[in-house]
Amino acid sequence: MIFKRRHLLGIEELKREEVELILEEAKSFSEISLREIKKVPTLRGKTVINLFFEPSTRTRSSFEIAAKRLSADIINFSASTSSLLKGETLRDTVRNLEAMRSDIIVVRHPSSYAPHFITSFSKSSVINAGDGTHEHPTQALLDAFTILDRKKKIEDLRIVIVGDILHSRVARSNIFLLTKLGAKVFLSGPPTLLPKEMGKLGAVVEHNLDRAVEDADVIMMLRIQLERMSKNFFPSLREYRMLYSLDLKRLKRAKKDVIIMHPGPINRGIELSAEIADSEYSVILDQVANGIAVRMAVLYLLSGSSEA
Amino acid sequence: MIFKRRHLLGIEELKREEVELILEEAKSFSEISLREIKKVPTLRGKTVINLFFEPSTRTRSSFEIAAKRLSADIINFSASTSSLLKGETLRDTVRNLEAMRSDIIVVRHPSSYAPHFITSFSKSSVINAGDGTHEHPTQALLDAFTILDRKKKIEDLRIVIVGDILHSRVARSNIFLLTKLGAKVFLSGPPTLLPKEMGKLGAVVEHNLDRAVEDADVIMMLRIQLERMSKNFFPSLREYRMLYSLDLKRLKRAKKDVIIMHPGPINRGIELSAEIADSEYSVILDQVANGIAVRMAVLYLLSGSSEA
Amino acid sequence: MIFKRRHLLGIEELKREEVELILEEAKSFSEISLREIKKVPTLRGKTVINLFFEPSTRTRSSFEIAAKRLSADIINFSASTSSLLKGETLRDTVRNLEAMRSDIIVVRHPSSYAPHFITSFSKSSVINAGDGTHEHPTQALLDAFTILDRKKKIEDLRIVIVGDILHSRVARSNIFLLTKLGAKVFLSGPPTLLPKEMGKLGAVVEHNLDRAVEDADVIMMLRIQLERMSKNFFPSLREYRMLYSLDLKRLKRAKKDVIIMHPGPINRGIELSAEIADSEYSVILDQVANGIAVRMAVLYLLSGSSEA
Repeated sequence: MIFKRRHLLGIEELKREEVELILEEAKSFSEISLREIKKVPTLRGKTVINLFFEPSTRTRSSFEIAAKRLSADIINFSASTSSLLKGETLRDTVRNLEAMRSDIIVVRHPSSYAPHFITSFSKSSVINAGDGTHEHPTQALLDAFTILDRKKKIEDLRIVIVGDILHSRVARSNIFLLTKLGAKVFLSGPPTLLPKEMGKLGAVVEHNLDRAVEDADVIMMLRIQLERMSKNFFPSLREYRMLYSLDLKRLKRAKKDVIIMHPGPINRGIELSAEIADSEYSVILDQVANGIAVRMAVLYLLSGSSEA
Repeated sequence: MIFKRRHLLGIEELKREEVELILEEAKSFSEISLREIKKVPTLRGKTVINLFFEPSTRTRSSFEIAAKRLSADIINFSASTSSLLKGETLRDTVRNLEAMRSDIIVVRHPSSYAPHFITSFSKSSVINAGDGTHEHPTQALLDAFTILDRKKKIEDLRIVIVGDILHSRVARSNIFLLTKLGAKVFLSGPPTLLPKEMGKLGAVVEHNLDRAVEDADVIMMLRIQLERMSKNFFPSLREYRMLYSLDLKRLKRAKKDVIIMHPGPINRGIELSAEIADSEYSVILDQVANGIAVRMAVLYLLSGSSEA
Repeated sequence: MIFKRRHLLGIEELKREEVELILEEAKSFSEISLREIKKVPTLRGKTVINLFFEPSTRTRSSFEIAAKRLSADIINFSASTSSLLKGETLRDTVRNLEAMRSDIIVVRHPSSYAPHFITSFSKSSVINAGDGTHEHPTQALLDAFTILDRKKKIEDLRIVIVGDILHSRVARSNIFLLTKLGAKVFLSGPPTLLPKEMGKLGAVVEHNLDRAVEDADVIMMLRIQLERMSKNFFPSLREYRMLYSLDLKRLKRAKKDVIIMHPGPINRGIELSAEIADSEYSVILDQVANGIAVRMAVLYLLSGSSEA
C-alpha cells in the first residue's frame, strides 16, 4: 500500500489501513534512533517548517529532532516570540512561508481546524501538531505505537482514558484511532469535563473511575489544565484528586500487566501520583521516544519520497 | 566580472554592473529551490550569523533558508529575546560573535548605518538586512529580480512607489537600484510622508496617486505603519485609504500588464485591497520566492567562494 | 590516556592529567576553525541539547557553533521563552528530552549542582555550562587554553583574579584549575565579595589590588553584576571603580608582558577601562575564539568517540 494523502490533519478521516501503514513505517524508523549515527539522508534538501502558534517545547522539539535525523532542513517559527505575525492574516503568513518552497509545514494552533484551513490554499504538505480542542494525530499515533510495542496488538484491549476529555485533542485523536483498530475504549472524568454525548464517538462513558479501570489493559491519564478550575469545570483540586487521580490502590483493579500512559507534561500528585509515574507500569518515556519514530515516518510518507 | 566587495551595505554605493552581477548570479541560484533536493554544498563549513536587533520573521527566515540551502551553518541571534546583549556595546557584541570565526554577519538594526559601523572593526562580511530608515538592499535586489523576471527589462519602465516613502528603507534602496538600471521612478504619498526633497534621489514626486499610476508598468505599495498615525503623519486611516489605497478602479489607469508589488506583511484593506493582493496582477509571493535566490547569491558572492 | 568520564560537571573533581588531556585535544580542534571549510564529520548523527535555564547568548552560541562544526545535530531550549517548562519538575523535563535519545545535554541553571542532580537519573552525558555560584568548567578550560597559548605554561605563573569572587562560578572553576596546574593564584576584591575563607581553596586573598597585581603574569577581571549593589555588597560604584577597576596606571605594577582576561560581557569603564579592554594586553577575544575549540574537545571526549 502507498500512502496517498498530502496532509495529516486528523485521525478521524484515516482508514484503518492508513493508520497501520504509518505505524509499520514508524517501526522501521524507530531503529534509527538507537544507532551510533542517528541520521539518514532520506529527506536531504527538503525544507520543513515548524509553525507554532501555541508554546510547545515538547512537540516542537520532537518534530525538530525527527526532521534533523532525516537530514531535512527545519526552520522554527513561534508566533509568541514573533511580533511580525501580528496584524497579518494566517493565510498571508503561511503563503509567505511556503513561497520559500517549504515541503512540509507542521502547525500547532489554538483554533480547531486551522490546519484544514491552511490546506485550502497551501501547496506544502500540512501536519496538524495540535489544533484547538480538535485533534493531535501524531500524539495518538505514538500512543498506538507504544501500546502495540508493549501489548503486540490493540484489537480487543480495554483502554481507559481519564480526565478532561471535553477539551482534549489528545483524547479525541486517541478515541478515533483506538476504536478504529478494534479496542474497547472507556472514558472517565467528571460530568462537566465528559458530557454523555461523547459516547457517540464510539467509546463507553463511565464517570466512576474505579469501575472504569476494572480489568484495564491500558490507562491513559490526561493532563489537568489548572486554569479550567477558575471556569468552574471542577469544584476543587482536592475533590478531583480523590475521584480521578490514579494511585497504586486504584491501579489494583486493572489487569496485572496494565500500562500507564500520559501525553505530558505531568502534574505529579494531581492526575497521577509520583509513585505511579515512576513505576514499572509507566510507559510515559517510551511514548516520548516513540514520538520521534512516528514523526519521522509521517514526515517521510508526506514528503512524497515514498513514491520513489 | 568578479564581485570584489566584502560587504553589502546598501544599493547607493553599488555600480550598475555590480547590481547586474548579483541579479545574474541569483538567476542561477533560483533554480536550486525548484529541485527535488534543494541543497548544494557551496558554503559547507561556513558560519553565517543572523543578528537581528529588530523582530523580523520574514527576512530572518529567508536568510536562514538561503544559508541552509547552501549548506552553511547558521546561528540566529535576536536581541529582543537575548537579555545578555543589554549593557554591552554593539561593538563588543559583534566582536565577540565574530571571534567565533563567523564568515558573514547578517544585521538588522533600528539605527541607520549600524551595519556600516560594524564594518569599521569587523573581519566578517556584513550584509545589511535593514538599518533604520536607510537601506534594505536585498529587498531592492529581490524586487528588481522579480521585475526582470516578469518584464524582461527594467530600463525605461514606469515604476511607481506608493506610501510612507519618508521612513521606508525599502523605498530608498529601490529608488537607488531602479534609477541606476534606467527605470523612470515615481513616488506617491501624502506630503508629510513624501517631502519634496525626495525628488533629489532621482525619482519624480507626484502626490496625486491617480496621476502617478497613469501608464505604470510596476506599482510598488509600501506597508503603512499604523504607529505613525499617532505622530500626526497622516490625519485618518479613512482619508489615507481614500487617497493612497490601491483598488481595481484606480488600477485601470495603469498599463494592462501592470504588476503589483509589496514588501509584506500586507495590511489588507489599508494600502492594498484584498482583491488586488490576490489578483493576477500581484507578484507579492514571487517576491518572497525570489528573496531566497537573491540572498543565496549575495551569501555566495560575499563568501569569497566566487574567487575559487 | 583516555578520558573516562561521562560528564563534565566541574573542574574540582578532575585530575591534573584529565585537564591536560582536554587542553591537548582542544589544541587539535582549534585548527579546524581556521580552515576554509570549518567542519568535520566527527559527531555526525549525534544529538546535542542546549538546555538553558538562564539567558546566555554567548555560551549557548559557543556550544552551538562547536556542535555544528563537529556535524552534530543541536537543539536549543531556553526555559525563559518556553512556557511549557513551567509546572514540570526539572527531572521530568530532562527525562523527556533525553527520551528522544540525546547524546549530550549542555545545562545552564541558576541553582548550584543542578547538573549533578541531572546526572543522578540521566543516560545522556551532561556538560555543566554554569550552575549558580558553583562552577563553569568550560570557561576555566578556555581561560587555561588562552594562558597556555600565550605563556606556553601555567606552572609558577602569578595569576590574579579580581572582582566579585564570592558569587563567581568563573572564579571558582579557575581557582580549581589554575592551582591544579601549579599557578600561584591571587584573589582581590572588596571583603564583602571576597571573604577570608576563600583562601582555603588554595589561592592567596589580597584585598589591596595594587599589591595583588604586583608582578602579575595574568590578570583576570570579573564582571561586576550591578544588581549586587542594591544588596549592599559594595557601597558605591564610584568607590568600587577607585579600588578595583583596572586602568593603565595600575597595570604598570604587573609584569611587562601581562595579559588581561575577562569572561565577558564587559562593563566598559567599570571593572575595566576601555583603553585596557582594547589594548595589546587584552586577550579577551582570544578567549572567545578558544571557547569554540575547548567546547569541541569536550563534546568530542564525552561523546564516546574517543574510544573508537
